[in-house]
Amino acid sequence: MAVVVQKYGGSSVATPEHIKAVADRVRRARESGQDLVVVASAMGKTTDRLLRQASEVSRDPSPREIDQLLATGEEQSVALLAMALHDRGVPAVSLTGPQAGFKITGRYGSGVISEIRPGRIQKLLAEEQVVIVAGFQGMNAMGDVMTLGRGGSDTTAVALAAALGAERCEVYTDVDGVYTADPRIVPEARPISFITPEEMAEMAWRGAKVMHPRAVELGALYGVEIHVRCSFNEEPGTVIAGGRKLEQLETRETLAGIVHDLDVARVALGGIRTGPGTLSRIFTPLAEHGISVDVIVESGTREGTADVAFTVSRANFTEARRLAGEVAASLGGEVEGEEGLGKVSVVGTGMLNRPGYAAKTFATLGEAGIPIRMVSTSEIQVTCVVQAERVEEAVRRLHESFELEERDV
Amino acid sequence: MAVVVQKYGGSSVATPEHIKAVADRVRRARESGQDLVVVASAMGKTTDRLLRQASEVSRDPSPREIDQLLATGEEQSVALLAMALHDRGVPAVSLTGPQAGFKITGRYGSGVISEIRPGRIQKLLAEEQVVIVAGFQGMNAMGDVMTLGRGGSDTTAVALAAALGAERCEVYTDVDGVYTADPRIVPEARPISFITPEEMAEMAWRGAKVMHPRAVELGALYGVEIHVRCSFNEEPGTVIAGGRKLEQLETRETLAGIVHDLDVARVALGGIRTGPGTLSRIFTPLAEHGISVDVIVESGTREGTADVAFTVSRANFTEARRLAGEVAASLGGEVEGEEGLGKVSVVGTGMLNRPGYAAKTFATLGEAGIPIRMVSTSEIQVTCVVQAERVEEAVRRLHESFELEERDV
Repeated sequence: MAVVVQKYGGSSVATPEHIKAVADRVRRARESGQDLVVVASAMGKTTDRLLRQASEVSRDPSPREIDQLLATGEEQSVALLAMALHDRGVPAVSLTGPQAGFKITGRYGSGVISEIRPGRIQKLLAEEQVVIVAGFQGMNAMGDVMTLGRGGSDTTAVALAAALGAERCEVYTDVDGVYTADPRIVPEARPISFITPEEMAEMAWRGAKVMHPRAVELGALYGVEIHVRCSFNEEPGTVIAGGRKLEQLETRETLAGIVHDLDVARVALGGIRTGPGTLSRIFTPLAEHGISVDVIVESGTREGTADVAFTVSRANFTEARRLAGEVAASLGGEVEGEEGLGKVSVVGTGMLNRPGYAAKTFATLGEAGIPIRMVSTSEIQVTCVVQAERVEEAVRRLHESFELEERDV
Repeated sequence: MAVVVQKYGGSSVATPEHIKAVADRVRRARESGQDLVVVASAMGKTTDRLLRQASEVSRDPSPREIDQLLATGEEQSVALLAMALHDRGVPAVSLTGPQAGFKITGRYGSGVISEIRPGRIQKLLAEEQVVIVAGFQGMNAMGDVMTLGRGGSDTTAVALAAALGAERCEVYTDVDGVYTADPRIVPEARPISFITPEEMAEMAWRGAKVMHPRAVELGALYGVEIHVRCSFNEEPGTVIAGGRKLEQLETRETLAGIVHDLDVARVALGGIRTGPGTLSRIFTPLAEHGISVDVIVESGTREGTADVAFTVSRANFTEARRLAGEVAASLGGEVEGEEGLGKVSVVGTGMLNRPGYAAKTFATLGEAGIPIRMVSTSEIQVTCVVQAERVEEAVRRLHESFELEERDV
């Protein structure tokens, strides 16, 4: 029988009532003849509540203890979901990440899956059990629980789908799939019915909250078909699938949607001596401190010096500016920083083959009088950094300009 | 260096503020030169909250999933306590029951410790870490978390003290030790400074909530010296210790205190045919269903039949009556049941050598016009089952009659 992995996010299991509704959905899926593995996140705001408690007892909680603490959130929701399934006559067993065979390596709070040993899951499936797996966690070489970091439950689900050779991974959330833009900002935005993993990864990295980009990339790597659906209705949602569905790809629009991100800070190194390895000297310390850098701009040299600017999330701003400041000083330059920025990205396949997209993006923002602070382009996206307070307007203007509301998606 | 095991109950770690206060106490103990292992319960009402959630999603939650759910409560408090210790500069590591080497057997929800492999704890102690262990839990042969049942954190602490050869086990609670009677009922009640494990076990079984009787018995078996103290002050509390402190024993009073229990129901089998094995036929099914029976009274036969009555907790009343009813029917008798009862017990060493205690107990209750429904006596206690609404009066009368308020304890 075909295995389907379903993943339910925190908003889908926020209360006992929500958990019962999820159990009803799982029961229906099982009655339709699927072998089911269900991955669940922590209930609603549980993770935030636990982090608040941690901050109340410690100014600087140790990452190991944070992981021990946070892992309990998912453990609670899977046990409750198994109980709700029993109450509906559905045989089910809940497993923690370690019990489910997730081996994790890397740093506490941002572990990466090194291996999945799905033996116990497969045995339970053979016993016709629905297997409920705690997302976001696994066991490290010390025998301790380690988490995958925020959004890691998506990664758990997609990795399990890959390890089990599942037919598909269904990701349930509180929205009807992936939208052409945030519907809270653009009321005309519509769900995208089909998107490539590459586009989805770009949209996820650039601000679409509906799915974690790591999970999208993992799905692309292992050819896992992902369906993003709403846990509160029966809408088809968004299918994320790659090359093997090429016939569908060729008939669809090349522009997927507009995404944005209001959590952007900029660090700029000015007047630094440049030469081979300069960029490496700037960015290696950031990587060593686990700071993700997004848009990078190196601007023209003058008298053998250069200006390099990059963006980070606000949480990493202070440390990134400090690290960049040390490098700037050693290279005879200066550092400056700026918070309160945002990004808006136009995402779609084949952007670079259609230079009109970038030009149209710049023209649209220019006509609206929105200054573009930084630009980054790739094969499938054009990203502009603008003032945070102009982001929503930029999203609306671009959605209108590219006529996304008129597409029959 | 001497190892001391400290155990903090749910009321001692109820909030982040409480956890910080516990961390201060642990830090002070460590500064006085002790190797410390700390066992913690779930925060305040966490276990009740989780059980309520379980009852909201399922009419009859599976014991395995209940255990998976409840174990998270202790896991949260130990992680938070480790963080609070780090914040005070004290090196500390939190461990779940499975991580701490607790091997559990038996039934979900009422597991028993089969083995403790303290290797990881000893290694961490050698590294001068304070080791924080989640109470109430361990791992069964399936690799699943299993709990010891309510009150199991006391058992965790005492078992660890035995396994580590600890100098003593300090049990912190929200009262100043073990009292001569419940101070909410008898304002003159006073903390007992020294009590034997046998007396303490009787008091615990018969209603003293301050420590779980299983833990007391385990302590007696392995010769663990237990100190019951209040986590909110520096009072000496109550020392529970056995024969090796005989010199103290001989100088103390033989009467320890009055305990009571309002959770008593009575099942009576009337007119059953009696013969060898009758009692076994009645009580074996109860034991097989995990129902603890307390007071048992078999009353005089008439024409080859007998009446047998016993008490159980209210939670077990319905099932106990059903099981007893089946046996009664097969023996030509009838069953009746009664809720709304309570017990009051006078506990002290050498009761049977001093028959005056039992007589004085009955006389005191008789003078107060409190009907005694059932009686049970042993070497160290006299227990009377009375109507629940008369229990408090009975406790006060007995405390006064035995002049417990005048003892210099």
